[in-house]
Amino acid sequence: VIGIDAGGTKLLGGVISADLVVHHRVHRLWRGADRAEVLDIMVEAVEEVRAAAPDVDAVGFGIPSLVDHDRGVSLSSVHLPLEDVPFRDLMSERLALPVFVDNDTNVAVLAEQRHGAARGARHVVMLTLGTGIGGGLVLDGQVYRGTLGAAGEIGHMTVELDGPAHPGDCTNRGCLEALVSGTAIGREGWEAGQEYPDSELGKALARGREITGALVTELAHDGDETARAVLATAGARLGAGIVSVVNLLNPEVVVLGGGVLAAGELVLAPARAVVAERALRPSGAAVRIEPAHFGEEAGMLGAAVMALEESA
Amino acid sequence: VIGIDAGGTKLLGGVISADLVVHHRVHRLWRGADRAEVLDIMVEAVEEVRAAAPDVDAVGFGIPSLVDHDRGVSLSSVHLPLEDVPFRDLMSERLALPVFVDNDTNVAVLAEQRHGAARGARHVVMLTLGTGIGGGLVLDGQVYRGTLGAAGEIGHMTVELDGPAHPGDCTNRGCLEALVSGTAIGREGWEAGQEYPDSELGKALARGREITGALVTELAHDGDETARAVLATAGARLGAGIVSVVNLLNPEVVVLGGGVLAAGELVLAPARAVVAERALRPSGAAVRIEPAHFGEEAGMLGAAVMALEESA
Repeated sequence: VIGIDAGGTKLLGGVISADLVVHHRVHRLWRGADRAEVLDIMVEAVEEVRAAAPDVDAVGFGIPSLVDHDRGVSLSSVHLPLEDVPFRDLMSERLALPVFVDNDTNVAVLAEQRHGAARGARHVVMLTLGTGIGGGLVLDGQVYRGTLGAAGEIGHMTVELDGPAHPGDCTNRGCLEALVSGTAIGREGWEAGQEYPDSELGKALARGREITGALVTELAHDGDETARAVLATAGARLGAGIVSVVNLLNPEVVVLGGGVLAAGELVLAPARAVVAERALRPSGAAVRIEPAHFGEEAGMLGAAVMALEESA
Repeated sequence: VIGIDAGGTKLLGGVISADLVVHHRVHRLWRGADRAEVLDIMVEAVEEVRAAAPDVDAVGFGIPSLVDHDRGVSLSSVHLPLEDVPFRDLMSERLALPVFVDNDTNVAVLAEQRHGAARGARHVVMLTLGTGIGGGLVLDGQVYRGTLGAAGEIGHMTVELDGPAHPGDCTNRGCLEALVSGTAIGREGWEAGQEYPDSELGKALARGREITGALVTELAHDGDETARAVLATAGARLGAGIVSVVNLLNPEVVVLGGGVLAAGELVLAPARAVVAERALRPSGAAVRIEPAHFGEEAGMLGAAVMALEESA
């Protein structure tokens, strides 16, 4: 099958066999493309890899949209011009192949649950911590989508009643995303650099460097205690958010992916400690908190897994 | 069938027909009973109603335990001495009837989803706001139990990172239960009474009355603005907790039950307003927030529904 991860800025695709080996790859960017152009780029990307593997049986797409999975319709998207697009039927007609489509975070958690960090677990929660925080759920072995396909927005759970707002469409305050995303870590790093000018973080700030989550992580890995403290705080707050999900859903595995996880144990260890301290027994004792296995390719692989399963 | 709701302090049971009419009822208290006595009381209660309706086909039990539903085992309980009890097999042998058992909050949400406030909805979240806060989930039309049967603990989601602790086994801080339970409303009412001695709440405090959630609600219904403000704050905080569940699970209906709901719109209206303001579109726009239909009998009726469905 062909798996396509159509993210907000780029497309990543490949021909993928049942054992999840990627045989051919394709990349595309769609800066500024309108609806027709975005769909054309997707078709071209599929045709490119299909030329190298003409015997594919189906195509799976993960798209950054609210998706009605049963009807294969992209209802709305804040990242691509895909509002009210009968995506599955349209693509299936243009490609003359069976097409399957779901939200990109749903296919990412599917990849991790079927073949990755949560392999073998029936109940899995995934958080992708990048600029924002995405999430997906596999419950009772199936992707859980909720009433409209909008489920899994773990980044927008309230963890601080009167906490800060964050950029984007979310009108909540004190979301996990406002406190623990890469953006939030950069902001906390800036504040810590102001407060501790002698730290490496403070020196970077004095040199005029932009304080991003990635820079905080780099300085923390280099041993800067101030940067480490910023990550420890973020990890503890992440843990408090995971406590909510653990107490509500009693999952077997919580998978953490995205750029923030470059911090590794500097974020994971405090998160695990807070879950151990604050989650209810027995849910807290039973859950495993694991870094994602697939990284950037989770969406492409999960789209392929969906196509393999649903075309079978 | 016979439905039995075995709560922390009392048992409520009845003979219930497929149209959910209650034909005979039984009540029991078990103050201080040990394990053998609790089980004896349950058997006697079943036998009492069975004598009036000898043709029952099965018995359903809702018990205040962590339940392994597939094996019918009560794994642990903070309310009754039912640790590691092979409940289903033991009761089935003593009663010579098919027996089905689940956690009491799971059968309550089942009753509301099959026949009550959330009838016809596939994805339902229920919160029972009393001394503490209980919860249950129906996802994709089925009771969702999680890995160990511990799912649904909505009252122990973190809504305030460094918020107060609350009595009980939960080691979290800033739980919904610490902020919005009947106990929390009583505590906030006490504080408001101290601050506003001329309010009815303040006068009640000066007369030496115990400030409970029920008293705050009574004074609010009588028009005391201070008591109304306490309930409005509780409702807004409840709303912020519901935002978490709505963003995570995209349910069709959130059902609110328990003693706190005696406050009616004084709590519901601010909760709904916060969900409308702070939840993500489209999940927030799609969800209905409804008072429970069944009140105190939800557990008994849900235990009967479970027995009807699983013995069919």
